[in-house]
Amino acid sequence: MSTLRVVALSGGVGGAKLLRGFYRALPPDSLAAIVNTGDDFAHLGLRICPDIDTALYTLGDLANAVQGWGRRDETWTFMRVLKELGGESWFALGDGDLALHVARTLRLAQGENLSAIIGDFARSFGIAAQILPMSDDAIATRVVTEAGELAFQDYFVRLHCGPKLKSLHFAGADTATLLPAARAALVARELEAIVIAPSNPYLSIDPILAVPGMRNALKAAAVPVIAVTPVPGGKAVKGPTAKIMGELGIAVTGRSVAEHYRGLIDGILLDESDRSVAHDLDIPVEFADTLMPDAAGSERVANAVLAFARKLGGQNRGGTLE
Amino acid sequence: MSTLRVVALSGGVGGAKLLRGFYRALPPDSLAAIVNTGDDFAHLGLRICPDIDTALYTLGDLANAVQGWGRRDETWTFMRVLKELGGESWFALGDGDLALHVARTLRLAQGENLSAIIGDFARSFGIAAQILPMSDDAIATRVVTEAGELAFQDYFVRLHCGPKLKSLHFAGADTATLLPAARAALVARELEAIVIAPSNPYLSIDPILAVPGMRNALKAAAVPVIAVTPVPGGKAVKGPTAKIMGELGIAVTGRSVAEHYRGLIDGILLDESDRSVAHDLDIPVEFADTLMPDAAGSERVANAVLAFARKLGGQNRGGTLE
Repeated sequence: MSTLRVVALSGGVGGAKLLRGFYRALPPDSLAAIVNTGDDFAHLGLRICPDIDTALYTLGDLANAVQGWGRRDETWTFMRVLKELGGESWFALGDGDLALHVARTLRLAQGENLSAIIGDFARSFGIAAQILPMSDDAIATRVVTEAGELAFQDYFVRLHCGPKLKSLHFAGADTATLLPAARAALVARELEAIVIAPSNPYLSIDPILAVPGMRNALKAAAVPVIAVTPVPGGKAVKGPTAKIMGELGIAVTGRSVAEHYRGLIDGILLDESDRSVAHDLDIPVEFADTLMPDAAGSERVANAVLAFARKLGGQNRGGTLE
Repeated sequence: MSTLRVVALSGGVGGAKLLRGFYRALPPDSLAAIVNTGDDFAHLGLRICPDIDTALYTLGDLANAVQGWGRRDETWTFMRVLKELGGESWFALGDGDLALHVARTLRLAQGENLSAIIGDFARSFGIAAQILPMSDDAIATRVVTEAGELAFQDYFVRLHCGPKLKSLHFAGADTATLLPAARAALVARELEAIVIAPSNPYLSIDPILAVPGMRNALKAAAVPVIAVTPVPGGKAVKGPTAKIMGELGIAVTGRSVAEHYRGLIDGILLDESDRSVAHDLDIPVEFADTLMPDAAGSERVANAVLAFARKLGGQNRGGTLE
């Protein structure tokens, strides 16, 4: 019998903080994360999956909280020598991080699916939650900017999101197959909520929603679909969400995020500081302190989402919440 | 005008010690090393060239002298995480070492020749000597043992040379092309000596000699070809040379090494402790302390080879020796 109680759609750091909250608030096999792979890219001949690896490191308690990405207790000898050799150094790869990329690249070349590899990595790190790539098919987020169309990591890391963004598209999404385990998770019997994590709606969540079947699966969900704002108080906690919303001509508010997900969500969790922008919004709203500076903060937000889900849907079949 | 004065055929650690000697004893652009690539292999999806990298690290003053292989100031985070992920860990790859393998693999996949890549690596490390793979074509040393036929590194590292050796062959050698730069080095105008370094004759030098044209180039050389014994006093300094000679039914002596190279060499430098086995040998012999425990020792042996070459051939055109 499935033990799944929460499915969360997530990008990188911001989303992973909420994943950590559910992972702590519930029994560890209660969570499935459907993670964006639109940021994945080939670099130095290696397949790198930034958002998935952030989920692995966060739930495996291996993340570098200070740096905001990568592993803690990391060394950087590889990068130092690579620079000496004149190799590309704009994307920082720690020595331990590299092990994932090398092992993944080898196994992909041997014909294994990304999802199977990530499942093994998660088990190796002692993670009982499911970390699911949105698809085993390659989907590449492409960023159309005033400086031309860019591959995602060129835009995001190499150019530090500098060029003004005009639009995004997700190459390969049309023909990709939603990961069967993700599809199954969304209809799991004991499910209480589907959560859109506080990741960048345009860069991190839209690629997931672009996989055929994903939007319909959310619309057809038997449990409440709840988004958590990535711009509490009209500011991005980290990263370019606010900058991008500005460039797209969208007001940087939780209300804009709710509008962005209209038709897919049953409610949105906004920050206490967002009460003024939620006036008259015809999508159910709940307010909480949505900042997650530490594990306790993550757990607090996760519990706020679970309480909101119960209130919205009465979908708590298990009755064992809290 | 060529400044080359010495060309040395070399395998890994033992050979690299003598390379270091010539590199110190002569102006730094006086040396070309033709290095064995029969040990090269694909591991974890990466192309690894153990003997070439040992030459790079040794001449770049980056080698780990205590360990006898790899880099000094190395870290091991990659291997630690790779083991956690269940990856193959029998071949130890340091974090800095890994940069060479990743950069090389990428550039090979992009269609570059190994020799061009190694030339760039050598320049990056500030090495003025030429480090030349024997060929840009793949040649794989195969070890026929009582436990069946094995790939070289399976035999050498994974199985610690355990299975009794019966014979060796060099897959791909028949159709390989001797590196043009190596061929040119062997006829360089200012050349004083061609040296067969004290590497394992069967595992490290025979693959080089198996490249079509190599034996004839040595036979046709205008300068003395001098071997240096890898078994001073009938013992291998390091590695399985003595074990292998025993398994092949060959007496572990410098005389056996001279016989092995008969027809190719004009002389052999044996150790002071080898005088008894050289009696009646009809190949010119010189004796010296051939141990190279440190840089000064390497330089001492290099100078002994150069003096031997002068004595044998009077080929010292430059007149600037010492």
